[in-house]
Amino acid sequence: MPSDIVKQLDPIFKAKSMAIIGASREPFKWGGRTLLTAMMNGYRGAIYPVNPREKEIHGLTCYPSVRDIPYDVDMAVIVIPAAASPQAMADCAAKGIKGVVMITAGFAEASEEGRVLQDELVRIAREGGVRFVGPNGMGIYSSAVNLNLCLHDDVKPGKIAFVSQSGTFGGLLAEFAERKGYGLSKFISIGNQADLNAADYVEYLGEDDDTGAIVLYMEGFKDGDRFFKVAREAIKRKPILMYKAGRTEAAARATMSHTSSLAGSDEIVDAMCRQVGIIRTSEVTHPFDMAEALIGLPLPRSNRVAIIGSGGQGVVTSDTCESLGLRVPALDHETRMKIKETLPPHAPVPSNPVDFAGGMRGPLDEVQVADALAQVDYIDGIICNTPHFHGDDNSDEVKMAVRGAEILAAIPKKYGKPVVTLSWHSHIGGGAIGDIMKAAGIPSYETPEQCARAMMALAQYADVRQKLAKDQDISRFC
Amino acid sequence: MPSDIVKQLDPIFKAKSMAIIGASREPFKWGGRTLLTAMMNGYRGAIYPVNPREKEIHGLTCYPSVRDIPYDVDMAVIVIPAAASPQAMADCAAKGIKGVVMITAGFAEASEEGRVLQDELVRIAREGGVRFVGPNGMGIYSSAVNLNLCLHDDVKPGKIAFVSQSGTFGGLLAEFAERKGYGLSKFISIGNQADLNAADYVEYLGEDDDTGAIVLYMEGFKDGDRFFKVAREAIKRKPILMYKAGRTEAAARATMSHTSSLAGSDEIVDAMCRQVGIIRTSEVTHPFDMAEALIGLPLPRSNRVAIIGSGGQGVVTSDTCESLGLRVPALDHETRMKIKETLPPHAPVPSNPVDFAGGMRGPLDEVQVADALAQVDYIDGIICNTPHFHGDDNSDEVKMAVRGAEILAAIPKKYGKPVVTLSWHSHIGGGAIGDIMKAAGIPSYETPEQCARAMMALAQYADVRQKLAKDQDISRFC
Repeated sequence: MPSDIVKQLDPIFKAKSMAIIGASREPFKWGGRTLLTAMMNGYRGAIYPVNPREKEIHGLTCYPSVRDIPYDVDMAVIVIPAAASPQAMADCAAKGIKGVVMITAGFAEASEEGRVLQDELVRIAREGGVRFVGPNGMGIYSSAVNLNLCLHDDVKPGKIAFVSQSGTFGGLLAEFAERKGYGLSKFISIGNQADLNAADYVEYLGEDDDTGAIVLYMEGFKDGDRFFKVAREAIKRKPILMYKAGRTEAAARATMSHTSSLAGSDEIVDAMCRQVGIIRTSEVTHPFDMAEALIGLPLPRSNRVAIIGSGGQGVVTSDTCESLGLRVPALDHETRMKIKETLPPHAPVPSNPVDFAGGMRGPLDEVQVADALAQVDYIDGIICNTPHFHGDDNSDEVKMAVRGAEILAAIPKKYGKPVVTLSWHSHIGGGAIGDIMKAAGIPSYETPEQCARAMMALAQYADVRQKLAKDQDISRFC
Repeated sequence: MPSDIVKQLDPIFKAKSMAIIGASREPFKWGGRTLLTAMMNGYRGAIYPVNPREKEIHGLTCYPSVRDIPYDVDMAVIVIPAAASPQAMADCAAKGIKGVVMITAGFAEASEEGRVLQDELVRIAREGGVRFVGPNGMGIYSSAVNLNLCLHDDVKPGKIAFVSQSGTFGGLLAEFAERKGYGLSKFISIGNQADLNAADYVEYLGEDDDTGAIVLYMEGFKDGDRFFKVAREAIKRKPILMYKAGRTEAAARATMSHTSSLAGSDEIVDAMCRQVGIIRTSEVTHPFDMAEALIGLPLPRSNRVAIIGSGGQGVVTSDTCESLGLRVPALDHETRMKIKETLPPHAPVPSNPVDFAGGMRGPLDEVQVADALAQVDYIDGIICNTPHFHGDDNSDEVKMAVRGAEILAAIPKKYGKPVVTLSWHSHIGGGAIGDIMKAAGIPSYETPEQCARAMMALAQYADVRQKLAKDQDISRFC
């Protein structure tokens, strides 16, 4: 049985048909851009443009009102001026539309009149049984029906759901994730949260099978109590990573005018995140990097990391791991001797980090060390390099690198331990090696710090899950 | 008159001719890779391969020893096994070669015998008047003569000199900088610093016209006193940015085996950096981002920043700026009213950060605000967006965006204030807009945090320069 929130939000995120109220032929108007974006990205449902001044747009029949559409409509997007939107919302309710995405701005964030108008919208929606996203948002993306209202083309479906309190900037962040090769299950620009708010989305995403990790960009909370209560439930099933903005004076000034929400005490947010197990990050792009590791890898038992990498790479990775609270245990004699056999003759006797002293004999050396370290009982996770090669695409070294990638890719399943990698060359992201890494859920990062933060996120979420399991055990006996 | 250090190091970094001792036909051997890399990257001098077992490699005449080369040779690269390298060094001295790049490993970093061998190398070089880089390094890149011994192809010449105590990892970092579009004047993998050490390179680079900023990756100091003394001089002419590794236990363990140098007390390094004015970063790629701003922009008078960006972008940028110690001053009434005129009607009355509320009318809106803010006397620098567009490459919006880029590009010179930008789309890096930004020295970053850190580095270096100028004033009167 689907829960209430699933019943209410599925019409939006799994819409089989959609009206665009305010659809336009002009690609640079919101109503034109939204329509074009949905069409060009291959939305899998039916699109019904609504515009009393048009008969047809881009080959689609245009209707004067949603009430004139002779088919069932799951969801409507509203992109007409604020003053006209209460009527549009009433039309949606009359048509039996269950979900609305309000892109229009000019409500509570803009003026007192806007606030009154927004309250009116909420009243009409509640009375009509409509749930709605926004207003003053950019729109949504949902991989479930390939629905894209706002992101630039080529959205790659994936397991990361991104909920953003900032529209334009949220879109930028989603595209940043895109460029890094991370896939999205949802993008939700939550706008003013007049009806649906961050807590509702987190509750819904907690139950969404397409979503493996929830990433949030937040500036303030409409209902912090409920948000953290809902997050506590969702986190039992998937990790939540959050950038919470508005820590400083100028930022708070901006937040206030921007989404008409109070930033709230940063210390309280910090304390609540720690208690609930939300991973809060210091930079706005970090949640995506971390989520990429969390969606595809087994969780480590504890925080003890083995690091493989030449010279400075091992040094910097170790520095960062230990600074973040991970442990980089020294290796016992037996393990060191075992690994020494796989290293080039002039490499020093390995400790942790394992240093190849710039002299790997081929792409297999390192993955063999990784496999050996994954068998050590006091090692919970591995940071190493994406297998790479120097030759052209058909050389023997490439074949070895591909073989190396296969060995590395097997580790997470074989030993139940996470592996995250540093990618030495930009071209590795694609190609056979990239595909093997991707299929195994092993992320390839650009910097040692990203690797360390990803491992930290894995250890932190493992800790959250262990504590939850213990609480459950206790409650079972009480 | 060139200084001693210039006379000694120019033969290496401006070598008109180079012998490669240990050159090989095999592209995966060091001696083969070094030769190929130099040839393929279009070194502007003569190359003389040295290998007693070959008559010719890749069309170049091969000599049994450097002593057999019938031409003057400025520099030699040594890539033969450690045991044979003292003889090679002696040959270089006999031939009158003034500079050597020792790539060979297996010296002090590997064993006690290696240490003895290294001392022997130093003795021979000193007696023969040879200065040398390494051993146990990756080699160098120098834009002056287009000499590349170790970096992957397509090195872009530029104003950043990068000195790395880690070879392989240094190469990765150089390639990272490359991918970000930053250009290098030098890459120096300093290896064991048996002869030339970090202080020598900083002294040389301080006088190098090709270099606008010095980036260091350091793990420990051979002679910390001299290093900081030399840095204090160099910093009068150009900024120095450093990642110093080895802060934690595991890292120190790795450093020790890696470059046989003690990491030293991290607190002392911190204190010395602050005193001398070296900008020390918390992540290993940050110095490159910062250097990119420092090489092309005027320095701000103080640390007061104006931020332009939609919603969350302004919030996050402000948060980061203030966290880093920059100020984001609220705007006075007159300025706010002036800016309001350039904003879309529904945008809130602007403060700082200036929020466009997602509704720019075109790429010119933002640059006009930037230009207005640059005229405000209590604003020292601007953070905004790289002008961008949504249409295809020939649309009117593109033309406006290009015009916007020109207006933005004029600001640094016109008002003597730095501008750094966030790039919304990956494709902006290239193309007309990218070229205009690049020519004006305005960096385009991927994240708000990079923008804030770059502005912080500008303010920090401005402060260093102001203090130096004041000291000079004082000493003039004493």
